Amino acid sequence: MTPEQFREAGHRLIDWIADYRAQVDTMPVRAQVKPGGIKNRLPESPPQKPESMDQVMKDLENIVVPGITQVQHPMHFGWFPSNASLASVLGDITSSGLGTLGISWESCPALTEVEEVVCDWLRQLTGLSEQWEGTIHDTASTACLTALLIAREKASDYSENRGGLQAESKPLIVYSTDEAHSSVTKAALLAGFGKTNLRKVEVDGGTRAMSGAALAACIEQDIANGCVPAVIVASAGSTGVVAFDPVAQIAQIANQHNIWLHVDAAMAGSAMLLPECRQLWEGVENADSISWNPHKWMGTILDCSLFYVKDPQHLIRVMSTNPSYLRSSVDDEATQYRDWGIPLGRRFRALKLWFHLRLDGPDAIRKRLRRDLDNAQWFATQVEQATGWRVLAPVNLQTVCIRHHPAGLEGDELDSHTLAWVNAINQSGEAFMSPSQLDGRWMVRVSIGVEATTREHVQRLWTLIQHSASQTF
Amino acid sequence: MTPEQFREAGHRLIDWIADYRAQVDTMPVRAQVKPGGIKNRLPESPPQKPESMDQVMKDLENIVVPGITQVQHPMHFGWFPSNASLASVLGDITSSGLGTLGISWESCPALTEVEEVVCDWLRQLTGLSEQWEGTIHDTASTACLTALLIAREKASDYSENRGGLQAESKPLIVYSTDEAHSSVTKAALLAGFGKTNLRKVEVDGGTRAMSGAALAACIEQDIANGCVPAVIVASAGSTGVVAFDPVAQIAQIANQHNIWLHVDAAMAGSAMLLPECRQLWEGVENADSISWNPHKWMGTILDCSLFYVKDPQHLIRVMSTNPSYLRSSVDDEATQYRDWGIPLGRRFRALKLWFHLRLDGPDAIRKRLRRDLDNAQWFATQVEQATGWRVLAPVNLQTVCIRHHPAGLEGDELDSHTLAWVNAINQSGEAFMSPSQLDGRWMVRVSIGVEATTREHVQRLWTLIQHSASQTF
Repeated sequence: MTPEQFREAGHRLIDWIADYRAQVDTMPVRAQVKPGGIKNRLPESPPQKPESMDQVMKDLENIVVPGITQVQHPMHFGWFPSNASLASVLGDITSSGLGTLGISWESCPALTEVEEVVCDWLRQLTGLSEQWEGTIHDTASTACLTALLIAREKASDYSENRGGLQAESKPLIVYSTDEAHSSVTKAALLAGFGKTNLRKVEVDGGTRAMSGAALAACIEQDIANGCVPAVIVASAGSTGVVAFDPVAQIAQIANQHNIWLHVDAAMAGSAMLLPECRQLWEGVENADSISWNPHKWMGTILDCSLFYVKDPQHLIRVMSTNPSYLRSSVDDEATQYRDWGIPLGRRFRALKLWFHLRLDGPDAIRKRLRRDLDNAQWFATQVEQATGWRVLAPVNLQTVCIRHHPAGLEGDELDSHTLAWVNAINQSGEAFMSPSQLDGRWMVRVSIGVEATTREHVQRLWTLIQHSASQTF
Repeated sequence: MTPEQFREAGHRLIDWIADYRAQVDTMPVRAQVKPGGIKNRLPESPPQKPESMDQVMKDLENIVVPGITQVQHPMHFGWFPSNASLASVLGDITSSGLGTLGISWESCPALTEVEEVVCDWLRQLTGLSEQWEGTIHDTASTACLTALLIAREKASDYSENRGGLQAESKPLIVYSTDEAHSSVTKAALLAGFGKTNLRKVEVDGGTRAMSGAALAACIEQDIANGCVPAVIVASAGSTGVVAFDPVAQIAQIANQHNIWLHVDAAMAGSAMLLPECRQLWEGVENADSISWNPHKWMGTILDCSLFYVKDPQHLIRVMSTNPSYLRSSVDDEATQYRDWGIPLGRRFRALKLWFHLRLDGPDAIRKRLRRDLDNAQWFATQVEQATGWRVLAPVNLQTVCIRHHPAGLEGDELDSHTLAWVNAINQSGEAFMSPSQLDGRWMVRVSIGVEATTREHVQRLWTLIQHSASQTF
């Protein structure tokens, strides 16, 4: 394809995207297709001849779009917000258009240095001190795995240079809670710690936050048993109910025993743009690594997960490679981000943050986040004041966990009722929420924070919910 | 930013990208900046107020572009080709515009199913049998780490569910060669195998391919010593000289001992679109996993690395998570790609392959690949016929490894001469090649295969090289 052909098709695509984004609120929120419903409409064999942009756009419209659960829809209240602000989309388009290659500083100095700059901008915007240095990973799952790997190597005095984890004589232990994101368990297993060495520390029944006392006791016990506490993953905003583990208290325990502390703020990092929220992760300065995702609530398009460490040299020592074909004469003076994560080749992801922060500006982003916090408080108040309805956990940010609990309904029957009213709404395409379990029983997470979601949408949701619950009971 | 503001800015950006790509051959190939040269021109603090698209575009033009090593430039012969075909760029732009979220089938059925379809198209196009099922990873580094993790779990009978790798009593061993990509060693260390359990099997001095006999002997010895051979990584196209390990022979050894065989065809997978190249990885059907990068020579924009396995159930068993907030009623009928790799959240990467294959068509891609193979043979012939010049390894594909070896020049002096002539060209911005080491001595890799590179460009390169070598000698 020539640049002129690209120009023509590109203009067409920009119009299509603008129209799509302007009309997203007219589509069903959840895709109305069954498994196989997309695949069955596509050819089993690859194309033999080139096809026209017309044909591709037709399939995009008729086959792909109906297969999308519209997370940019103002009535999307599922999982966590996954905002793709149009300013950041422009940055992403620029990255694609440039077609750069990030494998070393030399392969694209701008890719490295704009990343250094925007990571530092976000550090400042979230109130972190100058001791932190950041990079961009794809997701918090990868950032958590990286944190566990470098913690493992620190606790084992760099066993990778000897017989590896498999040669360690004392079990290395990972601490987290049952409320932590599933990626923590996954990372611990992939890093080789093993399920029996993963401690799910007790949480406070009301807040669902890790109990500092239980953590301390668990660590003491492990040490007495000849184990080596290696790493604690604290959730600053858990996935289920957005619980905040007490980072200050955990950091004190971690520092006392020289244990790596990783703070997983995947969702809640966005909130730290608001000074009034920062007490929620108080003590974070005493952690060893932090990750959070601008690609969630803040709205820099996926994939964009920030990973901060205090000591990049330790990170580099564990992750670095330096084959002859990647060397250049300036290596000592430049950052090599390949040594800050798992992949060698990297996209120019910093551009989407750069465009987003510059075109929208931090004030507009903060204003929107505060709007969502207000909406969540308003919604929680409605639920609390309604007969038979309960808010199940403190509303720390913008997620409200609710249950309709009619008198006399318990156990499996209550579960069936919960799933019935939420699934009825989800299936209708009018709104979408995530059912989730709390203590083994179903509840519904109402996660407010899509860029397009106003108070009016939240009001509409509350009407829908009440109606559905009354219909299915 | 509203859709209408996006429309206006987007059109402007498309024109800018089309112009940029049309003029890329007028720019220096290697960025002419020093470390810090970009960072120092950007504000240390984040913007306070929103800025205009004008301001951002001005900085893009004046600060970012001069900081890019132009890997789309026809005179770029460095590393491996990193083509970003404009057809695939359109697919990438579509992915950005849609702003989808891939965390489960339900979160975007089209994202999952188009990925299933295009992975199968590429399977057919590279002549692989129906026993392979694929997914898209960011890079071959991540794919290799995934392969090593699942191999580790298979060899240890799923130690992750018990005490982890650290509780294994017999050392698990990884086999590869010194010619394998640096990501293999990195993956082995991150997976916890440890340096002492990573065998660098002897290579044939002429071809640089793994010696099957040496591998067999090494395995026998390890078994005799009470070790457990866990995984072999065969390079189908190594990074230094594009050597092909003898996959058929290695597979036979692997199968005999029940060892996982991962074939790293990051670069050479593209060649398998050409039936005449497939003998280079003969035996691949007997491997357990394969990775290759359409984002290299084939030209689907980074990041796009294919990872194929024969037994997805094994992969899923090692990588899966299933928290309540990600469940849906159709989970049993649908593919959950989060269980096929490390990250939970995934972009709609399949679109760039879908657009690329449909708009360009496989024939045009094959024609271009054959052009590059021809150019490499032509170039190698020129070098071989010139006095004092040597081609240092078989030209299996499109990379030619060369050295200017004037009579009497040896050792460090020869190294200095090599680096002098290649660095002079690289610094000039007229062309770019990667110096690399072979047996500890510098050589130059001339990697042909940028989409825009014609015979004329290769001829010009050869003139430049001869001139530079004569000037610096």
